[in-house]
Amino acid sequence: MRLDPDELAAAGPFSKAERAAVYRAIETRRDVRGEFLPQRVPDAAIARLLEAAHHAPSVGLMQPWNFIVIRDLDRRRAIRDIVMRRNDEAAAMFEDERAAAYQRLKLEGIVEAPLNICVTCDRGRGGKVVLGRTHQRDTDLLSTACAVQNLFLAARAEGIGVGWVSIFEPDDLRPVLGLPDAVVPVAYLCVGYVAELFRRPELEARKWSKRLDLESLVFAEGWGSAWAFPEVG
Amino acid sequence: MRLDPDELAAAGPFSKAERAAVYRAIETRRDVRGEFLPQRVPDAAIARLLEAAHHAPSVGLMQPWNFIVIRDLDRRRAIRDIVMRRNDEAAAMFEDERAAAYQRLKLEGIVEAPLNICVTCDRGRGGKVVLGRTHQRDTDLLSTACAVQNLFLAARAEGIGVGWVSIFEPDDLRPVLGLPDAVVPVAYLCVGYVAELFRRPELEARKWSKRLDLESLVFAEGWGSAWAFPEVG
Repeated sequence: MRLDPDELAAAGPFSKAERAAVYRAIETRRDVRGEFLPQRVPDAAIARLLEAAHHAPSVGLMQPWNFIVIRDLDRRRAIRDIVMRRNDEAAAMFEDERAAAYQRLKLEGIVEAPLNICVTCDRGRGGKVVLGRTHQRDTDLLSTACAVQNLFLAARAEGIGVGWVSIFEPDDLRPVLGLPDAVVPVAYLCVGYVAELFRRPELEARKWSKRLDLESLVFAEGWGSAWAFPEVG
Repeated sequence: MRLDPDELAAAGPFSKAERAAVYRAIETRRDVRGEFLPQRVPDAAIARLLEAAHHAPSVGLMQPWNFIVIRDLDRRRAIRDIVMRRNDEAAAMFEDERAAAYQRLKLEGIVEAPLNICVTCDRGRGGKVVLGRTHQRDTDLLSTACAVQNLFLAARAEGIGVGWVSIFEPDDLRPVLGLPDAVVPVAYLCVGYVAELFRRPELEARKWSKRLDLESLVFAEGWGSAWAFPEVG
């Protein structure tokens, strides 16, 4: 197939200010648990976040995602109750001090934020054989995670905080949200405006865990061989 | 634990220009197969991309990722040969016209781009029980995909193109890259500067598949109930 030359557009680096904005979104984005403001997120802002998510890369252009916008408080309370039950199970898996610390971390964002968005993955979309998924069936889940990350970054630029809840069994949400069998919930997101964000990951600020040193995570040519990190000027 | 108030910083929406830059990165990012320029990607630029990836959200701050920077041409040829073998298997899964079209799509980016980066996920990092991963073990893979998306967007802002290769069995790369048993390759990336990018996804431009209409993918309150999309002004 001959390609129309108009399909390609000039693409170079962004301006310095544009680059800084992209890095600012990436570096100041936080997983939000407790700083939500109650004000309504307008539909137009939600639409921008979903457009951003929909621009994620997907294996074979499968676009396996759907988005369920949830404002109804009763429904959110039902989901909060499910997560709280799972959270008690989770707390029991930690020992002593960790268990006590864990209990203090638990989140009410599902009802405190004015909006929840469930991002799902339709495992059957695109038919039986999907380009790029022939040898790694779960690449559709990775594509969906990329959509979530796009949403996260667009939200940061909009002044909207997002908290990603994962303390549930996928089947827990199926009846509440009416998900078909082939569809799995990948991310359950609490969404709302925020006036403040943690300067560093909240789990680090609360001394639950630490940021790893990036240099220790990068190898050259193969596992275990340190990559010579450039001096930062 | 009492939290130091300095842990929080004021956070509102970005300026209009900053928001536009973030959306520009999200909307113009492309999966690159054939437009790589041969010029070397400086270590300082690689370090910026990896910093962006390392700022991704991760379940329980697990940070399960590592990054293997691969420039060596012999190693990249060995990986290209593996992918080509898997690609022949994949082509055989498509029928007739699709199979012929598939053959025309196959990529040489692994050796044409000056740089490859393998992004891996260490399934054992953070110990046996990881906060937020108690009921969904694969959330570490989702976190790693978020790191890849951050890298993709930072690269777009830098004028660097990225192509995500997934046509291999995870174990294929283990011997070539010396990956430990607990570590899986999540994304194998071809990386290099680009002067042009497709205006729309290449698979759409090449009529392999189409972008889905976002409105058909968004539901209100539960699966199947259309969300009223706002009029765009």
